[in-house]
Amino acid sequence: VQLLQKKSAELHERGIAWRITGVASRRLGWLAQPEGFVQDRLLGQELSQGRTSLSGVREWLTAARPDAVFEATSLSVKDGQPAIDYIRESLEAGAHAITANKGTIVHAYEELETLAEKNGRRFLFESTVMDGAPIFSLFRQTMPAVRLNGIRGILNSTTNVILSDMEHGMNFEESVKRTQEMGLAETDPSHDVDGWDAAVKITALVRVLMKAPLKVDEVERTGIRGLRSEDVQSARRDGKPYKLVCRAERDGSRVKARVRPEQVSLSDPLALVTGSSSIVQFETDIFPNLVITENDPGLETTAYGMLADFITAVVGRSSLVVG
Amino acid sequence: VQLLQKKSAELHERGIAWRITGVASRRLGWLAQPEGFVQDRLLGQELSQGRTSLSGVREWLTAARPDAVFEATSLSVKDGQPAIDYIRESLEAGAHAITANKGTIVHAYEELETLAEKNGRRFLFESTVMDGAPIFSLFRQTMPAVRLNGIRGILNSTTNVILSDMEHGMNFEESVKRTQEMGLAETDPSHDVDGWDAAVKITALVRVLMKAPLKVDEVERTGIRGLRSEDVQSARRDGKPYKLVCRAERDGSRVKARVRPEQVSLSDPLALVTGSSSIVQFETDIFPNLVITENDPGLETTAYGMLADFITAVVGRSSLVVG
Repeated sequence: VQLLQKKSAELHERGIAWRITGVASRRLGWLAQPEGFVQDRLLGQELSQGRTSLSGVREWLTAARPDAVFEATSLSVKDGQPAIDYIRESLEAGAHAITANKGTIVHAYEELETLAEKNGRRFLFESTVMDGAPIFSLFRQTMPAVRLNGIRGILNSTTNVILSDMEHGMNFEESVKRTQEMGLAETDPSHDVDGWDAAVKITALVRVLMKAPLKVDEVERTGIRGLRSEDVQSARRDGKPYKLVCRAERDGSRVKARVRPEQVSLSDPLALVTGSSSIVQFETDIFPNLVITENDPGLETTAYGMLADFITAVVGRSSLVVG
Repeated sequence: VQLLQKKSAELHERGIAWRITGVASRRLGWLAQPEGFVQDRLLGQELSQGRTSLSGVREWLTAARPDAVFEATSLSVKDGQPAIDYIRESLEAGAHAITANKGTIVHAYEELETLAEKNGRRFLFESTVMDGAPIFSLFRQTMPAVRLNGIRGILNSTTNVILSDMEHGMNFEESVKRTQEMGLAETDPSHDVDGWDAAVKITALVRVLMKAPLKVDEVERTGIRGLRSEDVQSARRDGKPYKLVCRAERDGSRVKARVRPEQVSLSDPLALVTGSSSIVQFETDIFPNLVITENDPGLETTAYGMLADFITAVVGRSSLVVG
């Protein structure tokens, strides 16, 4: 809501007007206000203005009647639920579906893409990888007819922060605790430190950009739990720092992918990516090595990815309702 | 022509069919063949198939009747001519104008953009900076509503190759000669080594992406002629290699820009960009530091920039004629 407000002049220039007619969360339940919530009261967490008697996503969509839904539930690596159901229902109700949830890509990309097309709506997900930096849209909108043959990068911030901390002398447990306090890592840090987040991200890139039916559990995956501080420090001293590296490459008609700690040379751009920054290198038929690096992402970058998707979805339409 | 042929399946998928109805060069003059040149004979430099009696761009456009014109004349830093006239005439004749010539941007961007809009055509120029890697389209198509506050990068390949050579012990004159033999530098190398090419590129980025009326001669410009091999080598040994760095930043309502040799630290991504690779860092309100690096550009990257522009311009139309 803050970013929508901050960028309202730019949205207006593009002919986009908006109001928020629905809000839902685990804590609040399903709230709808077809005339639009008062934004400042939303920002103040004051939600008594909404109808609260709704029982689920379908009733909520019927009450809120959104043109676009922003879906930002937390990831279920196993099955991508309930996000997939929410997006399916949203598209079927005639709304554009914009998600920051990678689970929807790795479990249902092709289905949701087809459903969106059938309904004349868009299914977009720029915020799922690298916090909303333009990765999917780079290929979709700026590199037509380019064939992607390989991907290599650092896609998980938490482990990258932990490895940087360990290089500076902190031990693994202390650093995990610090990333939890920063709000980066979950209470159960295995999602990050065992490489699941990175595996889901590389799978999402492969599914969408390489158009290959890779599954998360086909990714060869090693996390950073096995690394000792001493080893991480001496690797850095020797000019071969550890990074949790994601890779994907074509292997005949298939794509193979893996996530594992690797020592990289100091002349490798990956060596310079520390803390919460991330990087991805693309090997294509036209550009042998095109690299996108996002350093020190701000607080708004994930929200921005969703805003950019929203603009892509609706531009040219005159008036909109956002759920 | 080679790239159009190579990507014909991808073009076909997008509903794009094409033939080449006009060719022009300093050596060949103005050739038109409204039924379309035989492509393989074009590739074999066999051009007797065309009408050769045409006197200039206007007659050529009338004879060839293109839907899109690819303009790739060489740069005139002083006034951007004759490219600007060719593009103006092309747009007025109802063709999309796609150029690899930066002079047109720094001398006439706003005029040509307005003219294109008035005629319902596109004026596109992705190949003018970083060999066709998506830079202009990144902002235009993937980062709506983002405000660009600063730019920093290495944009001239020739000087970057020369600096790499000098680090390896070659002297300035030997390396200039080598880049000329590689086809990178012109017979008169001042265009590159005195920083003109870099100055024109940073100006093009500022004009288009920062929407500021910067002129090339307002760029504070120092080339690499003043650097001695010994200094370049000792700078690299000390871990502070020289790079010809372009910078632009907002200064109130204006934008200031400069090109000059700078020593960069080894933890700076610019330090890793050697030889013919290039890099640009963007400082925006949303992404504090977003970086695009193009390593080891292939032979087709400049042509690809023009192809991508072509697809952007015409996608959705069914059949096309290319001049």
